Amino acid sequence: MNIILLERPEVQIDTVTLTDRRATHLVKVLGVRPGDTVRIGILDGPQGMGTVTEISKRSPFQVRLTVQFAAERDACPEDQPFIDLLLALPRPIMLRRIFSQAAALGVGNIFITHAQRVEKSFWNASLLNEEEYRPHLLQGLEQAIDTRVPKVHIHGRFKPFIEDILPDKIANYSHLLIAHPDSSSPLRDVIVDVPGNILVAIGPEGGWIDYELDRFAECGFTAFSLGKRILKVDTAVVTIHARLSERRDLLRLDPGNQ
Amino acid sequence: MNIILLERPEVQIDTVTLTDRRATHLVKVLGVRPGDTVRIGILDGPQGMGTVTEISKRSPFQVRLTVQFAAERDACPEDQPFIDLLLALPRPIMLRRIFSQAAALGVGNIFITHAQRVEKSFWNASLLNEEEYRPHLLQGLEQAIDTRVPKVHIHGRFKPFIEDILPDKIANYSHLLIAHPDSSSPLRDVIVDVPGNILVAIGPEGGWIDYELDRFAECGFTAFSLGKRILKVDTAVVTIHARLSERRDLLRLDPGNQ
Repeated sequence: MNIILLERPEVQIDTVTLTDRRATHLVKVLGVRPGDTVRIGILDGPQGMGTVTEISKRSPFQVRLTVQFAAERDACPEDQPFIDLLLALPRPIMLRRIFSQAAALGVGNIFITHAQRVEKSFWNASLLNEEEYRPHLLQGLEQAIDTRVPKVHIHGRFKPFIEDILPDKIANYSHLLIAHPDSSSPLRDVIVDVPGNILVAIGPEGGWIDYELDRFAECGFTAFSLGKRILKVDTAVVTIHARLSERRDLLRLDPGNQ
Repeated sequence: MNIILLERPEVQIDTVTLTDRRATHLVKVLGVRPGDTVRIGILDGPQGMGTVTEISKRSPFQVRLTVQFAAERDACPEDQPFIDLLLALPRPIMLRRIFSQAAALGVGNIFITHAQRVEKSFWNASLLNEEEYRPHLLQGLEQAIDTRVPKVHIHGRFKPFIEDILPDKIANYSHLLIAHPDSSSPLRDVIVDVPGNILVAIGPEGGWIDYELDRFAECGFTAFSLGKRILKVDTAVVTIHARLSERRDLLRLDPGNQ
């Protein structure tokens, strides 16, 4: 936990009182004492510093902080996530890891939909409820020191999603990409100018079926490949995010050299 | 399991008989029948195809294959892993994931050593025995369709490792890199020519201490940063591997454009 994340209503003028795992972390792991300062942030709001004013070590631990935040506009807009994910629902243990890793890496939106090769039973996972998945997103933010919670959109049926929901989103993106091992295009062929927002579709174990690939192509998605290796979905998410970031860093820093 | 991996002594002229989880996978997951072909490979040897000749479904399952391999020299030498990892021993649950992900992504060597911020108890992990970690490496290879097992080198003491072991290895590398969030150099500043082999050092949770950073600098390691986000070690391994790969792909395909 590299930042203590707060829900906005928890802040009373300039004071916060913590009693949950955040208090336990401050007392047991960080061993804070009155006068110590810790990095804090409001979810989907600014970061700041909190100064410990009171600690109660009677169970449950209680820690009171006075807090101060940077102006909202100083929250590094150039550091806004530029990658959105479109996933065929992975198995729950993998999805949990993807939620925290995507939040840690910085992702704006996560769209989850069905695909032919998704096991139907995955749709019964309790993890698909916001109160179940939100803690995993927050873990990633606590790790990476960020306050921007990725927005999760769950659409259980492929056809209505791709025909009715997705077309309205497309104008938000400079690039619509679909990872596909059979493609012969590396990233450098599909991203030749500084990208704006990118939506990248990543299939289920076993890949998208041809019908699904055709629907994505009709929506304007371009296929790319990272090579012959077949990666698990969670490894693929991190790999694709990192390669897109490296590609963008290069194009942004030196637009003449592509 | 996208490839059935075989130990060399298992191959009797052109026949293999499987009785373990590989046989179970062929029968239960793939549902193979006599005459079907499956992708096979010899560990640290060539890939090939196996044709199912006999199946016994009495427990334990038994599957017999006749096998045929590509010539050893056709094993895609240009696809040799060019990244070696140097890790401060991570907690076992994380190391297990790193082993399989590193093997899936393609890594030549994994050096593991101590650091000030490594919990001493991690050194008691049974995972540090080859018979314990090798299955995790093989899982990664089975996923990614590769036969090259990353070589693992475990050195429990930092000073002897960095003073006596590491100097002999350095000539193997075109780049010695150390990931360090405080560095102001992005990858594009530290890799400006097509890299040969790269050794990249990734610290423990909490990072290397200054003494350790100084020792690495004395050995010729250059620090780089991927930005302000603090990543877990397993996420960092995948991210760094992917960014190095993207950077190399770019420089190899178009050496004039850096």
